[in-house]
Amino acid sequence: MEKVKVAIVGMGTVGSGVARLLLDHGDRVIRHAGKILWLEEVVVRDVKKRRDVELPEKLVPTDDLSRVYKNDEIKVVAHLVGGLEPARTIMIELLKSGKDVVTANKALLAEHGPELFDLARELGRSIAFEASVAGGVPIIANISQCLSANQITSLRGILNGTSNFIVSQMEEVGASYADALKEAQVRGFAEADPTLDVDGSDAAQKLAILAHLAFGARVQWDEIPRVGIDQLDPADLAYAQELGYRIKLIATAQLREHGLELHVSPTLVRSGQPLAEVREAYNAISVVGDAVGNVFFHGLGAGQMPTASAVVADMIDTAVGRTALTFRTLQLWSQAEARVAVCDPQTLTGRYYLRFTVEDHPGVLATITGVLGRHGISISSIIQHEASQDENGSVVPLVIMTHTVLAGATAAAVAEIDRLLCVRPGSVRLRVLS
Amino acid sequence: MEKVKVAIVGMGTVGSGVARLLLDHGDRVIRHAGKILWLEEVVVRDVKKRRDVELPEKLVPTDDLSRVYKNDEIKVVAHLVGGLEPARTIMIELLKSGKDVVTANKALLAEHGPELFDLARELGRSIAFEASVAGGVPIIANISQCLSANQITSLRGILNGTSNFIVSQMEEVGASYADALKEAQVRGFAEADPTLDVDGSDAAQKLAILAHLAFGARVQWDEIPRVGIDQLDPADLAYAQELGYRIKLIATAQLREHGLELHVSPTLVRSGQPLAEVREAYNAISVVGDAVGNVFFHGLGAGQMPTASAVVADMIDTAVGRTALTFRTLQLWSQAEARVAVCDPQTLTGRYYLRFTVEDHPGVLATITGVLGRHGISISSIIQHEASQDENGSVVPLVIMTHTVLAGATAAAVAEIDRLLCVRPGSVRLRVLS
Repeated sequence: MEKVKVAIVGMGTVGSGVARLLLDHGDRVIRHAGKILWLEEVVVRDVKKRRDVELPEKLVPTDDLSRVYKNDEIKVVAHLVGGLEPARTIMIELLKSGKDVVTANKALLAEHGPELFDLARELGRSIAFEASVAGGVPIIANISQCLSANQITSLRGILNGTSNFIVSQMEEVGASYADALKEAQVRGFAEADPTLDVDGSDAAQKLAILAHLAFGARVQWDEIPRVGIDQLDPADLAYAQELGYRIKLIATAQLREHGLELHVSPTLVRSGQPLAEVREAYNAISVVGDAVGNVFFHGLGAGQMPTASAVVADMIDTAVGRTALTFRTLQLWSQAEARVAVCDPQTLTGRYYLRFTVEDHPGVLATITGVLGRHGISISSIIQHEASQDENGSVVPLVIMTHTVLAGATAAAVAEIDRLLCVRPGSVRLRVLS
Repeated sequence: MEKVKVAIVGMGTVGSGVARLLLDHGDRVIRHAGKILWLEEVVVRDVKKRRDVELPEKLVPTDDLSRVYKNDEIKVVAHLVGGLEPARTIMIELLKSGKDVVTANKALLAEHGPELFDLARELGRSIAFEASVAGGVPIIANISQCLSANQITSLRGILNGTSNFIVSQMEEVGASYADALKEAQVRGFAEADPTLDVDGSDAAQKLAILAHLAFGARVQWDEIPRVGIDQLDPADLAYAQELGYRIKLIATAQLREHGLELHVSPTLVRSGQPLAEVREAYNAISVVGDAVGNVFFHGLGAGQMPTASAVVADMIDTAVGRTALTFRTLQLWSQAEARVAVCDPQTLTGRYYLRFTVEDHPGVLATITGVLGRHGISISSIIQHEASQDENGSVVPLVIMTHTVLAGATAAAVAEIDRLLCVRPGSVRLRVLS
């Protein structure tokens, strides 16, 4: 049987999982590839470190990348080094030395996609990256192959498992943000420094990749407007629930009349809708295609084996030759002109959830609704609960759900309301999925 | 740009949708295929019939199949003729005349898969069949490619949209089976003769295809034990709801210690679980892989454009060469030995929902629970509502949820209970998803 020699660069959690699948489950790889994927080299940063995978005696981990670069028999490399450097340089050297590369590094693609993909095309090589978005959920293949007969019109995803876990904990157990974050760290869902997860950056990087794929957008991830869950107030989770909604960190890419709507934001989703029911550290993506209608994908977005599953599927596709066929036609991150422009967020329409903390005296509601009315914001429902005392007297929370309104007008109205003397600081404005 | 000539055989609903995608949306096909898919011939049964798609002047529908067989320039054919014959003969002739075939005909594959796939392999041709299972949900590609690094351990699907629509109507609107069926027919979700949909045959055909793919099982669809929704009593939907469950027609393929569990049956699924929340005519599949964990797919399982979306994606994959690569390695329906045997349904364990109509007098409950106890059936919960009168005196419904028990023992216990004088005919035994 034909043998394709492969290598793993980076033996962290995912790398060890990939090694385990290749070494312990060669039978299923053969069944799908019709070939043996022979693990020839394993490159690690520290050869002395103990690993949680048993390697065969002859496969001695090395810290010398040139053993991979110089071995022309190695055709496919799982590049599992995180961060931007030396990950970028390693990727470039692998491509230049004639390897097809499989990666899980979304930050690298989101940041250096154009350079790396151009280089791969120029050299006749391929980059496969299923594992870079939503881990075990095969969203890359589904968008780029399975839904190829569609114009995708909308894509909404829960792409950051850490954030979803934290919000679920806050909602279900009534935990505070700090406690929920701590629990996520204990369970291994959150990094020691969780900033990129909870501030929406990680989701924005994944959204940038999906927007390239699905819409041919040419967007830098850090240009995507994003709000994380780190400022989320448990009170809003409770009000949302009272209104029949849950709050989720939703990454949105949606075709609008004037271009592509693109943002990451905590969003109210009506209970019972598939995206609202995504719990714990799961990921999910709801895709609408003009032919297929709505297709929904749900699975584990991170973790050793789910991510390794995606990496090994990519390695098989690459060894078989499928990746090359897909890669060639997709023109990812190419110099080709963007097929769609990103639209000005101010011009977008949508529904909003607003919460104000207002003084409890006559005329306040009239004043606030008056401001909203002048800005053309029409109200769909209001909740006002009984007053509580703060140091400046009696205040009440005022929760307003709008009909479909202009984003710019809503922002302006809220800014104007915030300047009213009867309104306390800290107004909340969240998107509502409609 | 390279042009690949294609043909459509069968211009029913789906065929017209395929023509529309190829003719009106050539741009997106080019983007994904890197080639033009040129619709060269359209074969219809009745050339005089009006169609709901506008064809270019030069593309005159023909009823002469030999125009396709004899045209060596036509490489890919969408075979969209339903039923077994002449569909089988047409498929054979297409393969023999050197075409790669794309089909949506699940009955044909479930019935004649081995013959057709062997022939295709022998001739170096391919058969793509994404549209044959779950319409717009790309479950075939996901199982055969995206999850290729996994041993799939479990697969549960809502594969018949008609049944799901009917059950949803009964549950949500409180419609009777007959009214719900009528509504399904009005809305175009059910055929004039809905037998194969509502008796579980259609789902069993799809399950047979998935079991081949995911487990290498060699099973004939009509050997799969199946119960449809045509005997479902609205009372059981209500009791299920009271217990926190919904009833869904679930097609199950699950690896057990002694082989593959395989059946189609109305099943109680706990509310809130993704499969329980599938409404209307939607399809869904929950797949568990040993590496990836649980992945859930949800979308439209039928209809013109969702099915056409799957057919055109297959045509693109075939024209690009991806299908050939996948087809070659998968060894579908090959003579190769089954990788897994189907296990004896009697030896399976699972949870059950039982409903008996019993006389309302002392000692009845003790008698029935006594029988269950002797058969080793342990009870997890019981509902008994107030008595109603039938012609033979006062009767009560007795609903029992079991713990995990042996299927064979449960069947024997229910049979024994049915013979008791205090029990009316018509006991109900449904599976519970655990």
